[in-house]
Amino acid sequence: MRNLIDPLDFTLDETISILDLADRIASNEEAYSHVADGKKLATLFYEPSTRTRLSFESAMLSLGGKTLGFAGANQSSATKGETVADTARVVSCYADIIAMRHPKEGAPLRASMYSSIPVINAGDGGHNHPTQTLIDLMTIRHRKGRLDNLTVGFCGDLKFGRTVHSLVNSLVRFNDNKFYFISPEELKVPDYLIEDTLIPNKSVYKEVRSLEDTLPELDVLYMTRVQRERFFNEDDYIRLKDTYILNKEKLQLAPADMPVLHPLPRVDEISTDVDTDKRAAYFEQVQNGKYIRMALIMSLLELTDPLTGKKVL
Amino acid sequence: MRNLIDPLDFTLDETISILDLADRIASNEEAYSHVADGKKLATLFYEPSTRTRLSFESAMLSLGGKTLGFAGANQSSATKGETVADTARVVSCYADIIAMRHPKEGAPLRASMYSSIPVINAGDGGHNHPTQTLIDLMTIRHRKGRLDNLTVGFCGDLKFGRTVHSLVNSLVRFNDNKFYFISPEELKVPDYLIEDTLIPNKSVYKEVRSLEDTLPELDVLYMTRVQRERFFNEDDYIRLKDTYILNKEKLQLAPADMPVLHPLPRVDEISTDVDTDKRAAYFEQVQNGKYIRMALIMSLLELTDPLTGKKVL
Amino acid sequence: MRNLIDPLDFTLDETISILDLADRIASNEEAYSHVADGKKLATLFYEPSTRTRLSFESAMLSLGGKTLGFAGANQSSATKGETVADTARVVSCYADIIAMRHPKEGAPLRASMYSSIPVINAGDGGHNHPTQTLIDLMTIRHRKGRLDNLTVGFCGDLKFGRTVHSLVNSLVRFNDNKFYFISPEELKVPDYLIEDTLIPNKSVYKEVRSLEDTLPELDVLYMTRVQRERFFNEDDYIRLKDTYILNKEKLQLAPADMPVLHPLPRVDEISTDVDTDKRAAYFEQVQNGKYIRMALIMSLLELTDPLTGKKVL
Repeated sequence: MRNLIDPLDFTLDETISILDLADRIASNEEAYSHVADGKKLATLFYEPSTRTRLSFESAMLSLGGKTLGFAGANQSSATKGETVADTARVVSCYADIIAMRHPKEGAPLRASMYSSIPVINAGDGGHNHPTQTLIDLMTIRHRKGRLDNLTVGFCGDLKFGRTVHSLVNSLVRFNDNKFYFISPEELKVPDYLIEDTLIPNKSVYKEVRSLEDTLPELDVLYMTRVQRERFFNEDDYIRLKDTYILNKEKLQLAPADMPVLHPLPRVDEISTDVDTDKRAAYFEQVQNGKYIRMALIMSLLELTDPLTGKKVL
Repeated sequence: MRNLIDPLDFTLDETISILDLADRIASNEEAYSHVADGKKLATLFYEPSTRTRLSFESAMLSLGGKTLGFAGANQSSATKGETVADTARVVSCYADIIAMRHPKEGAPLRASMYSSIPVINAGDGGHNHPTQTLIDLMTIRHRKGRLDNLTVGFCGDLKFGRTVHSLVNSLVRFNDNKFYFISPEELKVPDYLIEDTLIPNKSVYKEVRSLEDTLPELDVLYMTRVQRERFFNEDDYIRLKDTYILNKEKLQLAPADMPVLHPLPRVDEISTDVDTDKRAAYFEQVQNGKYIRMALIMSLLELTDPLTGKKVL
Repeated sequence: MRNLIDPLDFTLDETISILDLADRIASNEEAYSHVADGKKLATLFYEPSTRTRLSFESAMLSLGGKTLGFAGANQSSATKGETVADTARVVSCYADIIAMRHPKEGAPLRASMYSSIPVINAGDGGHNHPTQTLIDLMTIRHRKGRLDNLTVGFCGDLKFGRTVHSLVNSLVRFNDNKFYFISPEELKVPDYLIEDTLIPNKSVYKEVRSLEDTLPELDVLYMTRVQRERFFNEDDYIRLKDTYILNKEKLQLAPADMPVLHPLPRVDEISTDVDTDKRAAYFEQVQNGKYIRMALIMSLLELTDPLTGKKVL
């Protein structure tokens, strides 16, 4: 039985297989509308995340399955002192697969050790958010036709932004990708990303301060939200949050085929005047989110792809 | 693509068509139990409203469809600063139709401008609640056999009661309806309802203070809840809430075929000793609520009525 | 129309019939996967109880049915002053069966008096929790092969533990069961259980203080959680909660075929080193919980058992 706790739980080949399945689903969603008939997804969200929860639920419903779960810790048995291990064992009696969001790093991993059904990490604190990474890879591949030989700029909160760290960890597995890290000093990428990932992989990267100067160099731009909840004080948040805003004017400096990604929700780091530009890829990411989660649920439930007649993993 | 934001978004003919469909569903619910197979309703409730949310969900499930969503703002991405416009675009990737409740007037309208799927306003602040209006019309028509030439009394909180304003706005579209507005001075109908709706339509209306004196004149009585949350102070609430209570004794003054409507929930403005009187129509309204919402979902999804072989709108 | 409000609402024969159906479902779940197609369960939870709610929802989904509802009072119309009676009438228009959890004793009974669909009590305050009792009976019967002639030990909070009282009330209906009540003085079984149940039934029972001394005598051990919320002050809770902990060492004193039951969630009254012992039956109870609820929903909806061709009640 397989789980998805860390984006690197899948080999490169497995990752590609899941992206391929998600592409097939996107091209022919109807063919997959009954593959999970009679199956149940439990969404165990110990902190609210509407987008992610609804995306998982929509994915399961689109496969013909059903859903149950909770949307916040105040609805869960955690308030009665139950451990994640016990909850995982209990929910194993109610469902066929779990998607878990938890504010504490490692909680989904722990759940997977006690669960008798597959567990998908739907975000654990500042740690991992592997389905987002797969969505980002799918979107980049769809827009650029490849996942190697790309110059990718990451902009905004690179210190706390777990989606950035996860995506970098995945992109270094492909050949010849280069990285620009565009952030204020206070929010630059953590040392461990450089020391544990970039240097061992001999990746080319540059830390810069100016979005405008960097835009012309990029194949892909990944924007992030500067999250209020990551800051220790309000002043720092206000001073920094507007520094790295992308708007229509700045976007003129970028290549015509440079997709703009963002994990959403955005606050104002991308002006709405960018939304109608064909480079805006963030709502496409949302749509791909459903396809990726459909592909993942199918893969972990070991369902047969009706188009290929094969299992994925 | 059509939405339902304001009860007047539908022409008179369209309104009648929806009421007709709701009647057909009520007579033969089984025939409609698979028309929305594979479709998904997103219930986006930024404030709790169990009755309305469950009614929408029951309607969608009764059509064979599925539901997902959230039941309060604390479960939504609004807490992370996301705009209604972005949420609408995101949820468009997850579902086929949206029912939105929002404390802020105009939020569902704004959502409908950005959504790529139909949006039903499930109540926006003190503003509109168009599905309730359709329910009221269906119930009156069922009880009285017509929607014109009626003398309709509205009793209670006529100042803040949006269901009253919406129903008046709809009833003036039919011929020869007369209105009694029965309320304390502090809660009488707002001037704009008189100036923008009643006077331009040359409607006959009277503002009165006594429920007893008016009852014998009425074809229909519409009671409303005096909502605590609309008052600025507790004293005013307590002094006024009991003024316009309907009980078994007062009901003896009313015609034998005068239905009593109420949008529910009631607190004590209708005594429970009225519940067993055959004029009590408020639980019938609840039942009609499911049928109206089934009819609406079918209409906005442009589904074919299996009994007529036609689309509704 | 039947409801389940109190475990004793069913005769002994009916109880056995439901346990038998649950056993058949457990042996052949697939045969029951469409018996409730098109039916809707409303889970009305006025206080959170994830385990119980998810178990009911999983049961209904496993029968082919659908679910709707709310997971806490803040999501319900109760905040607008609606009575349980009105809510029951309203929800009768939306669903086919209700599972209700309420902090107030008697609320589900009251709901059942006004509902036009069956009501299952999913726990009302410290009062009843009849589905848990059926689960306990199913698990004991499965482990021991009988429900009579058993020596059953109850350990922990016997004063506030409603699952204990309910199970005792059911076990006295079978012949020759004996009871050990193992608790601190402060948490011993209430007088009314002795006076109203044990003495009239001429049941043999003993109140003791030591878990170790009693273990060798037992056919079945029922552990309970010492719930923080039942205590008036924190000091009493801390002093007492650890007194009656079961661990691997103590378990060596017990017979090799003595199942250990617990209604869950546990905090630390059973050490995790007991989990792998084959006597641990508490996760089997969770699994049985789904089967019991499937059997109950079928019975109260008067559905025909596809394996026997008969209705249950």
